[in-house]
Amino acid sequence: METIPILKVGDVLLVSIQVDMHDRLAMRLQDDLTERVVKDRAKGVLVEISSLETVDSFIGRVLGNIAAITRTLSAETIIVGMRPAVAITMVELGLSWSNVRTALTVDKAMEMLQAAAAASGEEPVDVHEEK
Amino acid sequence: METIPILKVGDVLLVSIQVDMHDRLAMRLQDDLTERVVKDRAKGVLVEISSLETVDSFIGRVLGNIAAITRTLSAETIIVGMRPAVAITMVELGLSWSNVRTALTVDKAMEMLQAAAAASGEEPVDVHEEK
Repeated sequence: METIPILKVGDVLLVSIQVDMHDRLAMRLQDDLTERVVKDRAKGVLVEISSLETVDSFIGRVLGNIAAITRTLSAETIIVGMRPAVAITMVELGLSWSNVRTALTVDKAMEMLQAAAAASGEEPVDVHEEK
Repeated sequence: METIPILKVGDVLLVSIQVDMHDRLAMRLQDDLTERVVKDRAKGVLVEISSLETVDSFIGRVLGNIAAITRTLSAETIIVGMRPAVAITMVELGLSWSNVRTALTVDKAMEMLQAAAAASGEEPVDVHEEK
């Protein structure tokens, strides 16, 4: 597969990473996601990585970059479903991800986005688009 | 990867199929999904297949079975993002999928679930779980 599909659920973009990402695929995801954040006016980005058994330093950095870039575009990125082994690797690699929020489940991440929107006085994040 | 992750978004289970499914993986998905429908009391199942370039008759039948089984468990399955080439193949294979609903996007599928719940007089489908 050449690209990782980006699913739009209301105001939120959802990406489920299931393949071991080589470097070019990771860069492509970064480009596609930032483009879609602007195009779809997304308020949040959920990157689901429960399938990933390992994360190398490059991929770790790309995920951190995605979070930083989307925040600049006023969309919060939350990494969802990280395995304990991946968390250990991240720390061992010295990737602090100080700006990256994490959640164990998609539902929990959606709640975090709602709470963040409420706290900043914005409209609530739609997880289902009203027509 | 051994399993396809099943994401819970409110009352809906979301599966994004990104790898070419060999037969055992497809059967495993069927088992996992039906188990999760009961465990999570899901009202809908979205199977996103925009990454799939081809569907063979076995996979086509498994997707049809998933829809039939989840309906028995009172959860509607919607196949999301089918490519035109896959639709053509399905027809050529003689798989009518008469019971399977399809949608082009996740948002559209969520709307269909809401509409179906409203029509049957049930509670609206939560796409975000309230705590």
